[in-house]
Amino acid sequence: MLNIALIGCGRIGRMHGALVHAHRDARLAVVHDPVAAAAQALAAETGATVADSAGAVFADPGVDAVIVASVTATHADYIEQAVAAGKPVLCEKPIDLDIRRVEACRTAIAGTDVPVQIGFNRRFDPGHQALRAAVAAGEVGRLVQLLVTSRDPEPPSDEYLLGAGGMIRDMTIHDFDLARYVLGGDEVVEVFAHAGALIDPERGARLDEVDCAMILMRTASGAQVLINNARQAPYGYDQRLEAVGPQGMLQSTNRTPHGLTRFTADATAAGAGYEPFFIERYAQAFRAQLDSFLQTARTGGDAEVGFEDGRRALLLAEAAYASLQQGRAVAVEAAP
Amino acid sequence: MLNIALIGCGRIGRMHGALVHAHRDARLAVVHDPVAAAAQALAAETGATVADSAGAVFADPGVDAVIVASVTATHADYIEQAVAAGKPVLCEKPIDLDIRRVEACRTAIAGTDVPVQIGFNRRFDPGHQALRAAVAAGEVGRLVQLLVTSRDPEPPSDEYLLGAGGMIRDMTIHDFDLARYVLGGDEVVEVFAHAGALIDPERGARLDEVDCAMILMRTASGAQVLINNARQAPYGYDQRLEAVGPQGMLQSTNRTPHGLTRFTADATAAGAGYEPFFIERYAQAFRAQLDSFLQTARTGGDAEVGFEDGRRALLLAEAAYASLQQGRAVAVEAAP
Amino acid sequence: MLNIALIGCGRIGRMHGALVHAHRDARLAVVHDPVAAAAQALAAETGATVADSAGAVFADPGVDAVIVASVTATHADYIEQAVAAGKPVLCEKPIDLDIRRVEACRTAIAGTDVPVQIGFNRRFDPGHQALRAAVAAGEVGRLVQLLVTSRDPEPPSDEYLLGAGGMIRDMTIHDFDLARYVLGGDEVVEVFAHAGALIDPERGARLDEVDCAMILMRTASGAQVLINNARQAPYGYDQRLEAVGPQGMLQSTNRTPHGLTRFTADATAAGAGYEPFFIERYAQAFRAQLDSFLQTARTGGDAEVGFEDGRRALLLAEAAYASLQQGRAVAVEAAP
Amino acid sequence: MLNIALIGCGRIGRMHGALVHAHRDARLAVVHDPVAAAAQALAAETGATVADSAGAVFADPGVDAVIVASVTATHADYIEQAVAAGKPVLCEKPIDLDIRRVEACRTAIAGTDVPVQIGFNRRFDPGHQALRAAVAAGEVGRLVQLLVTSRDPEPPSDEYLLGAGGMIRDMTIHDFDLARYVLGGDEVVEVFAHAGALIDPERGARLDEVDCAMILMRTASGAQVLINNARQAPYGYDQRLEAVGPQGMLQSTNRTPHGLTRFTADATAAGAGYEPFFIERYAQAFRAQLDSFLQTARTGGDAEVGFEDGRRALLLAEAAYASLQQGRAVAVEAAP
Repeated sequence: MLNIALIGCGRIGRMHGALVHAHRDARLAVVHDPVAAAAQALAAETGATVADSAGAVFADPGVDAVIVASVTATHADYIEQAVAAGKPVLCEKPIDLDIRRVEACRTAIAGTDVPVQIGFNRRFDPGHQALRAAVAAGEVGRLVQLLVTSRDPEPPSDEYLLGAGGMIRDMTIHDFDLARYVLGGDEVVEVFAHAGALIDPERGARLDEVDCAMILMRTASGAQVLINNARQAPYGYDQRLEAVGPQGMLQSTNRTPHGLTRFTADATAAGAGYEPFFIERYAQAFRAQLDSFLQTARTGGDAEVGFEDGRRALLLAEAAYASLQQGRAVAVEAAP
Repeated sequence: MLNIALIGCGRIGRMHGALVHAHRDARLAVVHDPVAAAAQALAAETGATVADSAGAVFADPGVDAVIVASVTATHADYIEQAVAAGKPVLCEKPIDLDIRRVEACRTAIAGTDVPVQIGFNRRFDPGHQALRAAVAAGEVGRLVQLLVTSRDPEPPSDEYLLGAGGMIRDMTIHDFDLARYVLGGDEVVEVFAHAGALIDPERGARLDEVDCAMILMRTASGAQVLINNARQAPYGYDQRLEAVGPQGMLQSTNRTPHGLTRFTADATAAGAGYEPFFIERYAQAFRAQLDSFLQTARTGGDAEVGFEDGRRALLLAEAAYASLQQGRAVAVEAAP
Repeated sequence: MLNIALIGCGRIGRMHGALVHAHRDARLAVVHDPVAAAAQALAAETGATVADSAGAVFADPGVDAVIVASVTATHADYIEQAVAAGKPVLCEKPIDLDIRRVEACRTAIAGTDVPVQIGFNRRFDPGHQALRAAVAAGEVGRLVQLLVTSRDPEPPSDEYLLGAGGMIRDMTIHDFDLARYVLGGDEVVEVFAHAGALIDPERGARLDEVDCAMILMRTASGAQVLINNARQAPYGYDQRLEAVGPQGMLQSTNRTPHGLTRFTADATAAGAGYEPFFIERYAQAFRAQLDSFLQTARTGGDAEVGFEDGRRALLLAEAAYASLQQGRAVAVEAAP
Repeated sequence: MLNIALIGCGRIGRMHGALVHAHRDARLAVVHDPVAAAAQALAAETGATVADSAGAVFADPGVDAVIVASVTATHADYIEQAVAAGKPVLCEKPIDLDIRRVEACRTAIAGTDVPVQIGFNRRFDPGHQALRAAVAAGEVGRLVQLLVTSRDPEPPSDEYLLGAGGMIRDMTIHDFDLARYVLGGDEVVEVFAHAGALIDPERGARLDEVDCAMILMRTASGAQVLINNARQAPYGYDQRLEAVGPQGMLQSTNRTPHGLTRFTADATAAGAGYEPFFIERYAQAFRAQLDSFLQTARTGGDAEVGFEDGRRALLLAEAAYASLQQGRAVAVEAAP
């Protein structure tokens, strides 16, 4: 039974807290949030103790591992503090919006054997995992094309967008990571991006933000990778993978919450609406992510999704922004 | 190039005429209909000659084979006349609404080697054929369960219903034949039927007719067969088979006219409406049926779907009606 | 927080125990099994106390409600004891294999306001619930046809079969209940059954047991209902509903554990295998069933699936066996 | 009844010839091929006359319209000759592999009112047409993303490839046109391309040819368009469209030749293989294309798919090749 601390009790923090609370091998021991009421409410539901500061969390000898779900600007600090305290940490993505801060954090924790896991939950989705396993097993032969479709059901608030660092750092970063997961070591070396405020041009102009993107990439082996993003999909959260090789094609398709299918004069074989958003769509994935983190926290060793994965996804986002500025394909600088 | 005569220029007759006209190996030579204008119109479109009587058709030495699409009451007569004239005949189902007339016709043509084909078009559908072939190849092991779903898009007119001999003789007869086709010699030996005017009770009462039926049958080997009928399906003509054995399941599914699929706030993955009715759904089957008939007409030998198939389907309909009257399972009398 | 006792720590008992243990509003307080080691193992995993006898469970003032997952022969006794002790009870189906024992139990508990819930878990499946809700909302108009397909992935052991009371009492009973659930008060009044040992005739002869059944029923309103069972389906646990009315069709379809779909030279759009069996397929349903039971245990009132539901499902099974013996449709005796 | 001449009696020419021969409103009057035996064989099957030269075809006053299915190098010449002779012409794509020859041809026929149709058959596919109609009707709101997936079942021969002008001019040109068809006037203004010999690198090096491409484009309105090509797809000819807007998504999906679906221990709901290649997949489209051409030939006016469509598709191919050379997005020069 591991004692877990949670820093950040907003929407995704509460979800992490509930998962820890329900887990047979872990206990939600301590929670912290700068908004004390948020921490207190979660503590009341789960029996956790409220910590007054993040520092108190890291100093607490009764805390075995920490989950960081606070605002992005604090991620790198907390990772460094967790490593310094010797506490395994699962930190929500992204590590930071500024690649220089990420590099500094990387330097700060270099050589540690404290597990640092980045919250790329989609790697733990059973369908995506089965697709990756099938690719790795050679079912389609060499992987030559990969398409990642990722559309949110509806745009976030202005407030969220203003702090998110841009759609490509905030949303596409999951898709960069998912692509890297399927590519299995065949790293992306070149990125070309299109992005625009096509769904809500007025808002795009007001916030200087895009809402649709297609990003075309090339890997070291020459494989072609497309990421396809939109901030609005009224038919539901759209999360698909398509992997192609000389021997066939694999798709990881969308999921419906149940199997009701309608046949009427208006629609033939119409399915139930897709899972509305990530908390529902990736519920299994979030649980499996926690399993993985707890396992690493117990046994030590590298996290299944590590700091370097977080850094590389951000490098791809940086390359995409550079491509948008320059109107050309941009090489990815991945070297140390 | 075979010269084909067509007797009966109503809706299905015109369809047959058009298929013959478009066929590379056949010519629509002669047409006849008691409504002269109907025959003349089709003749004008196709270059066929109009015959004043069915007798003139059978007497015409230039006619190589005959398609009969006239009213049901004339079918047995025309089959007898075609056989007497030595002309291969493709006759629409059913042979007659009265099983005694069918038996008399059977006696009259006993021993002939003139091909007599009954218009059970569904046997020629590529999906149903592929299912039968897979069953015959043992893909599911021994066939233990078979479900035939057959629902019309909308009920026929009062006038049609009054002359059709009852839903089970008129509509289900296709399903009896299709079941026999898949069963491949394992004949049905017992029939139990439910039927009712559930969709339009008022009309059912007025016309003394049913609009829904489920018919449960047992074969000589013990296999279980269900036929599932309705006279109205606003989502389109519903034509499905499901065959089950110890090794798996096979389905022959519905077809859409094209592949447009919609994803909206209201419906997920909604397909195009099904093919509206038999002329569209079984267009390929009607062409293949004609191919088969022309082939038999050229080479002689047994028709792919013969008189005995027509008779046996009607015997199953008779058994179903007997079951409805008696409220019990009824043995099928198939012996000569 | 309700203290729950569990009687019966076999496969399904352990599943119930784990669900209670993981539930935020309940605690697995006491467990009992005639095989002491089974109870001790579950107690060790969950922190529950082991009770030496079922009587001790019912006598324990600290027990708020009881789940019965013991052998069928004990169900009616335990229901009576639970009612006598004033403890809400969730009892696995069937109430008893002998309808006379069920009737006696009914008499014994008549007039009680202690909630008695029967474990028809499928009523809590989200897809089946959505179908029922759509039917109840009139989406297809009046319900005229209902098909329940229910095939197990593989046959149970000889030992299981010898104690199960026959496939129709053991397996079909779920389908009778599910049909009643969708029918929503339009009770079945007549049953006709076919059953046979078609998948494994040798075993069927040895154990005097069937492995396939089709059961055709009629409701008070005239609606046609088919249940379609097989004890073996190598493509996975097959659990489907199809509801038809004048305005359309609704299906509750099978579920795959994830969305991987394969396109190869051998197979087009081949999905992942279905959920293997009821514990996986109905995982959500079992959780929702527990939610419902806990809710009723807290608030009192009628269970969502009550004793009468258990009795009526068994009456349909009795009618089916009578139909098999008599080769005819059998009226259902539902009156008190 | 229009008298049609066919120039070019290879695989696709024979297909056109058969379609004309079977058409109720047209007659295959004259055929020509530099390989006389090819022309004679088709003439023997259809009753057409053999012309000794293309010139004789254009000079023949009995020829109402001409279909050109000869080698690409002759297309522009024959278009010019057809226009000079006042004969409507349906010419296979591409107009020429050299954009300068296309421009010269454009100048040569400027101002003509003789219908010139280019053989972009896919525009006539019912699914693609339904998608375009739904987009045009505003079903998804403004079109913001469009994905065209187009994979051939297997690579062509070396001989074919050496004369085809490169995959993007030969194969992708259909997809450029299909994208333009759906975009409905919102022209592509910028093209970025990736291409490589990923499926068969050895062959790619030997023939200096690619076998996979992803081409990312931007339209005047800012919409994002992806074309996704591969020369090999062992699961069958893969032809899909996906159109996305703020209100939803539309897909035009692949078609199977029939509805057989298999459920076994190995695969769940595995469909029949896709239509093998363009002659089968686009059979309806080729017929509808001929209908359209015959209609224009009779009535005069602009062809439904005109010379300018052929030219613009080639301009997109040119831009894609320029992008490949320069590693950057390339503006499309569409102005006269």
